[in-house]
Amino acid sequence: MYDRAMADPPEWEVAEWLNAAVPSTLASLRGEVVLACAFQMLCPGCVAHALPLMQGLHEHFGPLGLRAIGLHTVFEHHAAMTPVALCAFLHEYRIGFPVGIDRPDPAGGPMPLTMAAYRMRGTPTFLLYDRGGRLRGTQFGHAEELGMAAAVTRLLMEPEAGQGG
Amino acid sequence: MYDRAMADPPEWEVAEWLNAAVPSTLASLRGEVVLACAFQMLCPGCVAHALPLMQGLHEHFGPLGLRAIGLHTVFEHHAAMTPVALCAFLHEYRIGFPVGIDRPDPAGGPMPLTMAAYRMRGTPTFLLYDRGGRLRGTQFGHAEELGMAAAVTRLLMEPEAGQGG
Amino acid sequence: MYDRAMADPPEWEVAEWLNAAVPSTLASLRGEVVLACAFQMLCPGCVAHALPLMQGLHEHFGPLGLRAIGLHTVFEHHAAMTPVALCAFLHEYRIGFPVGIDRPDPAGGPMPLTMAAYRMRGTPTFLLYDRGGRLRGTQFGHAEELGMAAAVTRLLMEPEAGQGG
Amino acid sequence: MYDRAMADPPEWEVAEWLNAAVPSTLASLRGEVVLACAFQMLCPGCVAHALPLMQGLHEHFGPLGLRAIGLHTVFEHHAAMTPVALCAFLHEYRIGFPVGIDRPDPAGGPMPLTMAAYRMRGTPTFLLYDRGGRLRGTQFGHAEELGMAAAVTRLLMEPEAGQGG
Repeated sequence: MYDRAMADPPEWEVAEWLNAAVPSTLASLRGEVVLACAFQMLCPGCVAHALPLMQGLHEHFGPLGLRAIGLHTVFEHHAAMTPVALCAFLHEYRIGFPVGIDRPDPAGGPMPLTMAAYRMRGTPTFLLYDRGGRLRGTQFGHAEELGMAAAVTRLLMEPEAGQGG
Repeated sequence: MYDRAMADPPEWEVAEWLNAAVPSTLASLRGEVVLACAFQMLCPGCVAHALPLMQGLHEHFGPLGLRAIGLHTVFEHHAAMTPVALCAFLHEYRIGFPVGIDRPDPAGGPMPLTMAAYRMRGTPTFLLYDRGGRLRGTQFGHAEELGMAAAVTRLLMEPEAGQGG
Repeated sequence: MYDRAMADPPEWEVAEWLNAAVPSTLASLRGEVVLACAFQMLCPGCVAHALPLMQGLHEHFGPLGLRAIGLHTVFEHHAAMTPVALCAFLHEYRIGFPVGIDRPDPAGGPMPLTMAAYRMRGTPTFLLYDRGGRLRGTQFGHAEELGMAAAVTRLLMEPEAGQGG
Repeated sequence: MYDRAMADPPEWEVAEWLNAAVPSTLASLRGEVVLACAFQMLCPGCVAHALPLMQGLHEHFGPLGLRAIGLHTVFEHHAAMTPVALCAFLHEYRIGFPVGIDRPDPAGGPMPLTMAAYRMRGTPTFLLYDRGGRLRGTQFGHAEELGMAAAVTRLLMEPEAGQGG
């Protein structure tokens, strides 16, 4: 959660939202602490660690003001990780937070647009935003449960006035 | 591993073998202790527990004579758990033992043929065969690592003459 | 963390402090969010779950204002869980937060004084206090990591003015 | 399990046996596959991994012929890891196999006699003996569950005639 900060991070490019009544945009979440997790449904580290952590944070820190968001950033095995497969996956793993499908590259490259815009190195990648919409930290790979919970807590403790805007 | 025994269990009905130079049949494995695991790639208990156990048994008990076999018994989310998706899954999870795709029901029912022939209740289901080709035990659901290793060991310790035939 | 609340909880009765330059009292910690964990060094659930959780909260939430405190509440096997044994235990398990030895009952009963004053049912028991020194919740037995982190976060988010006094 | 083999390993020097109706000697166990684990009750790796593995092997492989043995080899914190403390520990952790207390050095050195005779480097150390009483392997530190089960199985599969003598 300490790699990078961006005052004006790129908006997510989402082709379709699952587990969501309405689309989420980073802009519409201004005023909330947001933790997004870019994952792939066939990434073992995402399945074993990152998504259970996201689900736990959603359940326990959602009532405190955290918005947990998944981004399905498929950059390999595209024929396997289709939208219909993702729907089955979210159902079987009982993922309860909104998941956006990162928009495929219209130029045909393997990496989807949001993943490219944030120059992610792989999955899982966590993106933590403060109430002012600033990207305050990113993390690639394994995240310790309590370390991530503390990073979220630090932003929840910041006064609303810190939203900037 | 104590539910059921069958002196003459049904042959596996496999549409396609992955991780295998040649197809396996139960008949061709006569003389070997065989542990088969029926699984689905989107079954959380299979991914978190059953397949790591099978992979560990394959690595450690393979040299002692165990043949570990996977059977992909898709009975739900058929559009998600396609052969191409299974290939990607086996690659990402580094599954090293042969996996057969249970043949879909030609009559169009949701349950594939081997799953139906063994009257499995779901996934994971373990099937343990002795050197004589007899089904010596089945288990549905979570299997304790050392309990399964001991069940395998019991059959490995049986004299070859016990193969029957 | 939802069992009991007390506006004016009993002070801890501590015979000796370890891992601490000066003794802690509940009164002296007024103004801080405090999580105390009553444990025994030979309680398997304490060793496997509660103390690693306390250590993790100490490391990650200490910088955010949490004070983690251990209370060694020996109510069985008194000849085994002596102060010298506790010192060795804390060293081997690399416990970094202050630990107080709950004062033995001068009347010779098995239960030490703080444990009795709080009517604890066993170990581990968690006691969570807000900045005003109020007991806001207790939990006996297994605590989920993120659930406990969220209970702590809720109090950290309360305004200082909520200290009462 | 591959470090060292000894055709004629030293007998254990045990001051007192717990969890045992009669004392065990290596000589008296000739004819059985034996897995001994040298441990300390305040060694975190022993408590978290080695002893649960020993207990699991005792439960699942005991009926197949394995004899699981604990050796309490105290080489540090002697005032904490006393016989009375060990008794409480075995009770709380529900250890069901015989445990021998390695005899303290009469010359007053920190390392007990069996530990010294086997030149152990620390705890946990596993010692695996075949039916002929030969030491077939040792392992210091973390042992993988299925790897250890397979090493045991390999010896259980050896014909009785292999007992030598």
